[in-house]
Amino acid sequence: MDERLKKQMDFILEVDKVKNIMRQTYLADGRRKENDAEHSWHLALMAVLLKEYAEEEVDLAKVIPMVLIHDLVEIDAGDTYAYDEVGAATKADRENKAADRIFGLLPEDQGQWLRGLWEEFEAYESPDAKFAHMLDNSQPLFLNDASDGKSWTEHQVRKSQIYKRNRKTGEGSEKVWKYMQELVEKHIRLGHVIDDVKEN
Amino acid sequence: MDERLKKQMDFILEVDKVKNIMRQTYLADGRRKENDAEHSWHLALMAVLLKEYAEEEVDLAKVIPMVLIHDLVEIDAGDTYAYDEVGAATKADRENKAADRIFGLLPEDQGQWLRGLWEEFEAYESPDAKFAHMLDNSQPLFLNDASDGKSWTEHQVRKSQIYKRNRKTGEGSEKVWKYMQELVEKHIRLGHVIDDVKEN
Repeated sequence: MDERLKKQMDFILEVDKVKNIMRQTYLADGRRKENDAEHSWHLALMAVLLKEYAEEEVDLAKVIPMVLIHDLVEIDAGDTYAYDEVGAATKADRENKAADRIFGLLPEDQGQWLRGLWEEFEAYESPDAKFAHMLDNSQPLFLNDASDGKSWTEHQVRKSQIYKRNRKTGEGSEKVWKYMQELVEKHIRLGHVIDDVKEN
Repeated sequence: MDERLKKQMDFILEVDKVKNIMRQTYLADGRRKENDAEHSWHLALMAVLLKEYAEEEVDLAKVIPMVLIHDLVEIDAGDTYAYDEVGAATKADRENKAADRIFGLLPEDQGQWLRGLWEEFEAYESPDAKFAHMLDNSQPLFLNDASDGKSWTEHQVRKSQIYKRNRKTGEGSEKVWKYMQELVEKHIRLGHVIDDVKEN
């Protein structure tokens, strides 16, 4: 077995661990929470289906690998819940170290390429990154809607938190963000999301 | 909400169910079996990394959606274990009906495109389908290796069964198939796979 294939196999087996990293979002049926691998699979499929709603031209040959690997750093750094402000403070440092180790398992060309995609995702500036973040932000919202707002209720999530997290989601897709806002309003009416935003 | 987005959302939530379809393969750590969503995520990432070993030129813009959706029919038809010959007899009919319903949820253009990719995968003739099947056949073998042959031992799997299932795997990638054969020989030596094939 040559060195290159060995490195690729080491990475392929290492990333199996994201299947055990649990998120705070429940599956659509509300019976259990989902893990990072399931979440990333869902985003990749959504990328294919929702590309037509991207605000700017996006390249699925970059977006799909980007969403497939965007949570790998959590193997070392753990999942930080979207509305956990304490965890957020140390998140970047923990995740950079994780990226060094995990992408460093691969042959240099592939490791640098995937790490570059992860950095592009984190920078949240390019059209591809904005589209990927739109997927990453909308998928848990769709699951929350399907599971009767279970995770929102558990965490007593406020509208202002959702809007803060999604302040750039419309730059990925205005159409999807508009639909997400309709869902938030629905769950405010249902009492699953706390309305702390004054109407202007 | 327009009709097209509604259909896409119905599909996106329907396919969430594959996260509850359990396979016979254990995760690398051997602690639980994996589900179809996790498996499909793993294949998509492997497609990116192992493309260089494809026997013929492959198009990731087709292969990746193909592996992301290749198991969706199991939402209705259930998972048929690779070495279950009774289940295999009714598999095609069950899966065709499932494909009608599930891909039929989507807007017609997207549903037909994804159903076409699923049919191409099932036909197992094109370079893209052969590469996708190589991924689909090698990933559980890599996990079986990592988990000390746990699933092989449980099902008392024989070398002839593995070779029958993998009779075309080398057409997807000779290099990966050669490595898979080395792993099978290792697990025969370890007593996890039954050697029922006479050497010529």
